Formats: sequence, structure tokens, C-alpha cells
Amino acid sequence: MAFKLVSPAPHLARASRPFLQCLRRAAPTAQRRYISAYGYEQAKALTFTAYGEPPDVLKLHSHSISPPHGNLMTLRFLASPINPADINQIQGVYPSKPTFTTELGTKDRTAVAGNEGVAEIIALGEQVKQQGFKKGDWVIMKGPGFGTWRTHASATPEQVVLLEEGMREGITAVQAGTVSVNPCTAYRMLTAFTELKEGEWFIQNGANSGVGRAAIQLGKRWGYKSINVIRHREDQAAEEKLKKELKDIGADVVISDAELQSQGIQDRANEWTNGGREPIRLALNCVNGKAATAMAKVLASESHFVTYGAMSKQPLTIPASMLIFKDIHFHGFWVSKWSAQNPEEKKVAVKDVLELTRKGQFKDTPFDQIKWEWETKEEELIAKVKDTLEGYREGKGVFLFGKT
Amino acid sequence: MAFKLVSPAPHLARASRPFLQCLRRAAPTAQRRYISAYGYEQAKALTFTAYGEPPDVLKLHSHSISPPHGNLMTLRFLASPINPADINQIQGVYPSKPTFTTELGTKDRTAVAGNEGVAEIIALGEQVKQQGFKKGDWVIMKGPGFGTWRTHASATPEQVVLLEEGMREGITAVQAGTVSVNPCTAYRMLTAFTELKEGEWFIQNGANSGVGRAAIQLGKRWGYKSINVIRHREDQAAEEKLKKELKDIGADVVISDAELQSQGIQDRANEWTNGGREPIRLALNCVNGKAATAMAKVLASESHFVTYGAMSKQPLTIPASMLIFKDIHFHGFWVSKWSAQNPEEKKVAVKDVLELTRKGQFKDTPFDQIKWEWETKEEELIAKVKDTLEGYREGKGVFLFGKT
Repeated sequence: MAFKLVSPAPHLARASRPFLQCLRRAAPTAQRRYISAYGYEQAKALTFTAYGEPPDVLKLHSHSISPPHGNLMTLRFLASPINPADINQIQGVYPSKPTFTTELGTKDRTAVAGNEGVAEIIALGEQVKQQGFKKGDWVIMKGPGFGTWRTHASATPEQVVLLEEGMREGITAVQAGTVSVNPCTAYRMLTAFTELKEGEWFIQNGANSGVGRAAIQLGKRWGYKSINVIRHREDQAAEEKLKKELKDIGADVVISDAELQSQGIQDRANEWTNGGREPIRLALNCVNGKAATAMAKVLASESHFVTYGAMSKQPLTIPASMLIFKDIHFHGFWVSKWSAQNPEEKKVAVKDVLELTRKGQFKDTPFDQIKWEWETKEEELIAKVKDTLEGYREGKGVFLFGKT
Repeated sequence: MAFKLVSPAPHLARASRPFLQCLRRAAPTAQRRYISAYGYEQAKALTFTAYGEPPDVLKLHSHSISPPHGNLMTLRFLASPINPADINQIQGVYPSKPTFTTELGTKDRTAVAGNEGVAEIIALGEQVKQQGFKKGDWVIMKGPGFGTWRTHASATPEQVVLLEEGMREGITAVQAGTVSVNPCTAYRMLTAFTELKEGEWFIQNGANSGVGRAAIQLGKRWGYKSINVIRHREDQAAEEKLKKELKDIGADVVISDAELQSQGIQDRANEWTNGGREPIRLALNCVNGKAATAMAKVLASESHFVTYGAMSKQPLTIPASMLIFKDIHFHGFWVSKWSAQNPEEKKVAVKDVLELTRKGQFKDTPFDQIKWEWETKEEELIAKVKDTLEGYREGKGVFLFGKT
């Protein structure tokens, strides 16, 4: 997933800055797009030159992008979420590595953080036009590694997926900017490993996560029933509130991990599934550890168990009998790899999810909107990234770019 | 897998015994088949009425079988192995349960031990003849639960697989009697989970087991290369001897579990596989525990890992990254279930293995032949079963029935 950014030589980038600051002072509200006299687009990006903890390594870097020609287009980002994988990527512990390059006019090779987002095409070369793109179109990233925590970027058509007019209609930037990872993960896991029949069940943990909420809603649409496991809360009222919230978006059953691991769970599962006549044939796991093994125990024979995360930081422990006699199949799922290898399938998933969103049948995960204006300070942005680092958040941070 | 045994009423079975003993005394060598004047076949079987340790619960039970009619045939067993699963079944810890019945003329409901074996048809009803069976034919069990630790049995065509003349040619009773479990397990695991290409590798632990030796030889025939893991032996010479033994039947690489878990294993694997260009795409596991996880680590991405045993009595522990990023799929395999559900596929596997055996391309696992004559005492037979119970044996016990 290499990408090319065309920028003027470093000395030009440096030269244009005082000129822009002057422009900004002259017309702070009327002229908010800092575009130089020569058509250079002024951009800011959260970058890193070495792996490490985000507050230590992230820098807000300013550069400029030359007018696009040929197969290049200039993108203005609208919304880019902070996903846990983005953090892991900055830490260097994520297998999908970003591209480190000096193309943004830096002395050292640097990478732009972030993997998901939606952008508007604000300028484009002739070849891009011939491929059906036009100014004002929205695009999402085709695969990981593009670098989406930035105001602007230069891209080629191969790096993006166009959201055609019909797909974009009635969709907010946040909705489009967060459709690629969580909803697509849920979409693919519910369909790729086994063909659930209407009325059959799946069980998932981390059910209040972005993926979990997407799975509840997609499953509901497709006629699947869901058992949803959330972490036990000391605050009983908070636990009940969350249970209700998930039921409101379509969860059939919501239990805590403590309930899942308690004695009577098999009897309860029998009740829910009409004595196993409506079998639980799929499990989605982002927790691992004992709570994940407990989830596998309520599956019907010959079911599939898909792991896409490990919030407990524990491995998955499987008794031999579960493999040999119960014939449960254990798989993993990584949305980045799937997106990169199957762009057409991804496009179908995105289209379906946006269609449901438009109809009001697919609700957003609660967001923490982080405004990123031209004036927003480096430390403010990095503080928000740090928030995501520190423990599990119910809501999810999304950079929402001001019309700079 | 219910089976029907037709026997005379209990009082008849009891009545016939003194008569037979008399016959035996009268003609101890000339007349060795104890057949009553009315055509009743005299039989002995290792049976149990309740689950427990084999020495505690097994009894040698004598009964008689009435002349077959309709869709019944009388079988004389030739060879029946003692498999670990048979022991687990007697202990009551095996999911495939035997049928407990009073049809053998017992007061309490009793089951016959053993699941694998080969038998000769010695008498058959008219309907069985019409289905192409004849006296002298050899049959193996279609699925588990028939009870094969016995001299004779009554069966229906649905319970057996006929070894046609061509299949039986040049095959010993021990070879035919041990083809259903271990060689079929290896056959199926090497073919069902991924399509290995010639020159590609599989890795397996417990490589000197019956399944392990079968996998080495079948793999070799099909052009697959094998890395074979055996338990580390304190006695270096014994370890080397075993390594050579496995290489002699076609193993490409043989290492101990200590070597597998040592530092340089990834480099060695790279060497063997030509830098991964001939990938290791399948793992066969009958051990579990850390040594199994270590085996998964040398697999190429998107490979399959199949568990069919857990000799270490440990679960399987899988790091999340192995599922999510390396995309390894973990399955289980249970030959009993497969046989019961896919009799035709089983027949093909049996035919292929016997064909290779006939050509001298498939060597038997070392056997401990246990003679079972009419005179063999209960305690002798049970002592041999106890041997299998006590720890892991290199060789495998097989009851070899005298021409009673």
C-alpha cells in the first residue's frame, strides 16, 4: 500500500509559509482555504518518524501539495477516526506498517498516522477525470497505510474507493469516514465463515464496541439472532443502561461476561435457542482469555469461532474436545488484509451499510468528535489521541476537519 | 450406530455350554469350531456393564449366536486392535458411547468393547447374499460402536464395509484390521483441510504414532514433505534410532519437541523450506500444550492446524496474532464421526491405503500381537488391555483371533 505524495522541494514548502500566514492575517474568515498564488494546497498532518508512544512521537507537520496533474488528485479530509489499530501502528506493534517517506518535505523519513477516513476531491489531474472522478466527490481509502490524520493529501485513483452519488446521499462525513473498519469487520465476519440461516444465532463479546454494535444491527437486518456479551460493571445501573442501549439497536440477548461464565449458562442458552433447534453457529471474539473460551462452550457442534481482537491481552485457550469432538473451527479476521485483497467485496459491504444508514436502520457508534481546524494546536490533537490510548472508551474519537 | 445381535434366550445360551465343553473334550484338535448341533455359533466377548477402568469392569462373556437368516450374517473376527479411544470409551470419557444391551444373553445390559477390526463372514442369510456378500468375505466396521473385541458377532450389511477381492489380495488380517482408524485419520487430515501442492510441507507431532507413521508414508506418496516432531528422549541413542526409523519410511525431517521449542527453529525451518518458497501449510497435532503452539509458529500464513489428540492432556493455547494477522485456521478431526457420516469416502481411503500396502509402499506400525484363542483366559486378555492403559506404547496391541 505504498502511496505517492507530490510536494514541492523542501525549500519551496518552507518559503510559502510566511506568505500564507500573511494571507491568513489579511482575511481570517473570508479566505479560509490557504492556497498559494501558485495553486499549492497547504496541509497539516500528524506524522511520526520513529515508532513509539503517540504522545512521544507524533508531530503536527505542515507542508504544501502542488496542483495535481496526470493521475493525481488532491484530497481534503472530512472525517478520520482514531482506531485502536492506528495506535498500535504508531507503537510499531501492528503488522501493517506505514510508508516512511521524505515526500512531505521532511528531512527525515516520516509517516502519516491513521488508516481510515473520508475525503473530498478538491482538485484533480486529467487522467483522474477520465476515470469518472470529479471535484466534490467523496472517497474513502481502499486499504490501510494511506495516512488519514491530515487535512489534505495527494492520491491516485488506485488508492481510493469512490463513493458514488447514490452511496453518499444522506450520509454524514462521520458515517462515511467510519464505515471501512468496524462495520466492514462485522459485515464480513457475519457472512464469510458460515452461512447462518434466518432465526439462527451468533454470540459475540465486546458487544458494545463499534464492531459489536454493527454486528447487532446487521445481524438483525439479515434475520440472525444475537447473544451479546459485555464486561461486568460494578455499577449495576450502568450495566443495565448499556444492556438496554444494545437491545434498542436490535440485540436479542445481552449478558455480562460474569453471567456467561456462571453455572446456569447452558440452560439459559437452551432456553434462548429453543433447545438448540435454533443453533448458535458463530462466535465473534475481540476479548480472548477465559471469557472467550466460555463463549465457545455454548456453540453448537461444527460452529465457527472468529477472533478479531484480544482486549484482555490473553491468548485463546481451547480444550482438545472442543476441536476434536465438538468440531468447532477457530479462525481469525483482519479487516485491513481483507480490504487490501478484496476491494470489490469491500465496496459491496460499504454500499450495503451506507444504504442501511440512509434508511435509518444502522445507527452510528457514539462518537467523540474532535474538531481539527487550521488553528488547532498540535498538543490538543495529540491529547485526544492519548485519550484513546488510555484504556477502553465507550465512544470513539473521530477527527472532524474544519473547512480549512 | 445401534447394532442387533441375535442370540438364543439366556437359558438356551447357558444350556449349550456344557454340551460344547463336552464336544471340546471329545475332539480338541479336529473340531475347533464350537458349533452346536443346531448351528449355534459359540462366541466370547470382552464386555462391560458399567464404565470404569478396564481391569475393573471388563469381563470375558461367553454366549451363542443363532444361525443367521434374512439380513443377518455371522462374523468371525480375525484381528481387532486396542486403540486409545477404546480405553477412553470403557472409562466413559469418550463421546462415542457403545450400545448396552441384553441381547448377548446377560442379565444386565452389557456392551462389547473395541471399535475397530476385521472379520470373516462365516454364515449369512438370504438377503445378505442378494447384496453381494458371500461366505469367506472379509468385512471391516462401517463406524464406531460395533464392539470388536470378540470372537464372533452377528451383523447386518449396513454395519460393515466389504473388502472386495481386489482390496483384500495380499493383505494380512492385522493390516485390514487396523486400516480404519490410524491410516484413515492420516489420509483424511492430509486431504480435507487444505490442498497441499507437491513439494509443500506439513508438520506433525506424535510422529511415531500409528497416525504419524501413516501420514509420513501417505504424504511421501503424494509428494508432500514432512517435518516430524517426536518427544525428546534422555537416551540420545534411542532418539536417534527412532529418527532413523521414521526417515526410513519417508520422513524428510525429524526433530524432537525440545528442538522445535528451541531458539533457532525459525532459521532451520527457513532452510528446510527453501526460505518459505515451499511453505509449511498444514500441521497435525495429537499432543497439545506448548509444543503444539510451537508447531503453529512455523506455519506459513493462512495455513491449517488440525488437532486429533491431546497426549499432553493440555489445552491448545493460541496467541491472538496467530489467528488475526497470520490467519491460521484451527480445526479438529475425529475419525469416528467422519467414518459414520462418510462411508463412501472412508471406503476410498481404505482402498487406497490397502493398495499401497499391497505394493509394499505402506508399512505397518509395529504391533504387539495378542493371541486370542478359545482357551485364552480372561485375565490374560485384560492384562494386555491394561498394558495399553499404562502410558504411551511404541507398539500397539492387536488381538489376533485363533481359528476357533
